[in-house]
Amino acid sequence: MQALWLENNQLSYKKNIPIPKPLPGEALVQVRLAGICATDLELVKGYYPYCGVLGHEFVGEIVQAKDSPERVGERVVGEINIACGKCKTCFRGQVTHCEQRSVLGILNRNGAFAEYLSLPLKNLLPVPDSISDEAAVFTEPLAAALQIQEQISIKSTAKVLIIGAGRLGQLIAQTLALNGCHLQVVARHDKQRQLLTARKIMWIAENGFQTQAFDIVIEATGSTNGFSLASEAVRPLGTIVLKSTCKGSMSINFATIVVNEIHLVGSRCGPFAPALRLLENCLIDPTVLIDRCFPINKALQAFEYVVQSGIFKVLLCFPRN
Amino acid sequence: MQALWLENNQLSYKKNIPIPKPLPGEALVQVRLAGICATDLELVKGYYPYCGVLGHEFVGEIVQAKDSPERVGERVVGEINIACGKCKTCFRGQVTHCEQRSVLGILNRNGAFAEYLSLPLKNLLPVPDSISDEAAVFTEPLAAALQIQEQISIKSTAKVLIIGAGRLGQLIAQTLALNGCHLQVVARHDKQRQLLTARKIMWIAENGFQTQAFDIVIEATGSTNGFSLASEAVRPLGTIVLKSTCKGSMSINFATIVVNEIHLVGSRCGPFAPALRLLENCLIDPTVLIDRCFPINKALQAFEYVVQSGIFKVLLCFPRN
Repeated sequence: MQALWLENNQLSYKKNIPIPKPLPGEALVQVRLAGICATDLELVKGYYPYCGVLGHEFVGEIVQAKDSPERVGERVVGEINIACGKCKTCFRGQVTHCEQRSVLGILNRNGAFAEYLSLPLKNLLPVPDSISDEAAVFTEPLAAALQIQEQISIKSTAKVLIIGAGRLGQLIAQTLALNGCHLQVVARHDKQRQLLTARKIMWIAENGFQTQAFDIVIEATGSTNGFSLASEAVRPLGTIVLKSTCKGSMSINFATIVVNEIHLVGSRCGPFAPALRLLENCLIDPTVLIDRCFPINKALQAFEYVVQSGIFKVLLCFPRN
Repeated sequence: MQALWLENNQLSYKKNIPIPKPLPGEALVQVRLAGICATDLELVKGYYPYCGVLGHEFVGEIVQAKDSPERVGERVVGEINIACGKCKTCFRGQVTHCEQRSVLGILNRNGAFAEYLSLPLKNLLPVPDSISDEAAVFTEPLAAALQIQEQISIKSTAKVLIIGAGRLGQLIAQTLALNGCHLQVVARHDKQRQLLTARKIMWIAENGFQTQAFDIVIEATGSTNGFSLASEAVRPLGTIVLKSTCKGSMSINFATIVVNEIHLVGSRCGPFAPALRLLENCLIDPTVLIDRCFPINKALQAFEYVVQSGIFKVLLCFPRN
């Protein structure tokens, strides 16, 4: 099958990757659409030494499911963490943190930038008919945006600032706008600002926010500068949510964190079911973020395209039977 | 009066500092004993550009209180944050974070390494007779140790690790040992270990702990190395409490915080009333930490003494009428 392969920080388009053989309890999924995410770009930069098929955002169709043949034909999205189900962490119900986990396209499991992938059946959620493929492919990043509210309580009276209005920042902004809180988003580029304005979400320039004024600040740039801005914006006893992974270390003034008794919360993958509900109810529209779709055999061009400034979401599509 | 003065990172012993003139609502306190704290040492190093009388841990006696003359003669300890009582933060009840605050011996308010200090009457708490001066002088750092449990819930089933067994680490260890949790303390020096053993608190060497095994890790060294150890020790979804301030920035691997969804909590000053209750009930014995007491006119020698390795707590005492 065709796939985009990562090895030694080098991407290559391959035509001869074997179709995955599902293990017991797993299904074979034919990928319809896949999305390129910041984590993919970080993996290419070497954030984590992954070798295999890249990609973890997808919508596809179950084409083989020996243990549940009735599910063949189902259109699905998939939770990307594959847990062992047996360790202490799994027994605590924290399956996304299973010590033995593999992660689709990120850790020990070939990913979604390929014609086919395999995942455990329990990871695959049916997509309601009313959700288009173009919206469903955003389920994973939308779930990641929703994870914030799984971790901290955001009151509707809270003053919230999102630093960064790229792919993830926009999805987080759309979810938090539903909460009624006082929301502002630091947005650099015109296109980012237009998308926010279109949803009546208030954007501000990088130097436009009030310092020490926000109850909750969400860092969605993954840069040292983003963290500095977050530290300036958060009020004493406030919370900073770190929402993006990137390679290397960042320098932090710890005294500020201690003296102002700031909470810092790392935030990663989130729940798929509520993401699908919001998409089904048309409360979130991620499709406005789509810039372009490339066929899998042009995946390398897609990666050149996506790193340009002002690009939100680039999708990969696949040949259909 | 005699006092220890800090100016341009330079300590000097002075004999001619004017006795403070209490403002309305304030009392004049004659200091009996004062304690040297890590924050004092950081202030000397330039952690914050403070100029004035140093010192914020004390026990003393009210000698003048125009608005409450009945309190003259009371033996007291004092909350070190002097809040405006009028700002948004004060109205939220978060007076230790008042934007206009002064802080005894730290920010815009002459401190406790002097024969007299002034503080608002409402900051001064009476010390029960059964608590010795030598124990009462620890009320402020003991309150800081208790602040951890004001910020996060520590279940008695939790696995807790304290990194650092110096002055603050020992007090934190004593408070958490009362909770019944599974507690271990990383202790480097024999004397640190002996004090812990005497209270039946389990100590371990720096390389002796299980990685990713602790629900809660308390960083009480204020060093980059301490934070690295904390990051290794905490389990996914666990909490790191940052309990010490120090000058400068620290480098942090943010990806770990995000991927493992770690909570980081800065923690500073705490509640005095429970600290006094624990001292009154003899549930905490801070006096085992006292190495030596210097008279105020030997304060410079005290500061040379306290920076030596293996020293816990050095006190300053004052002439009594």
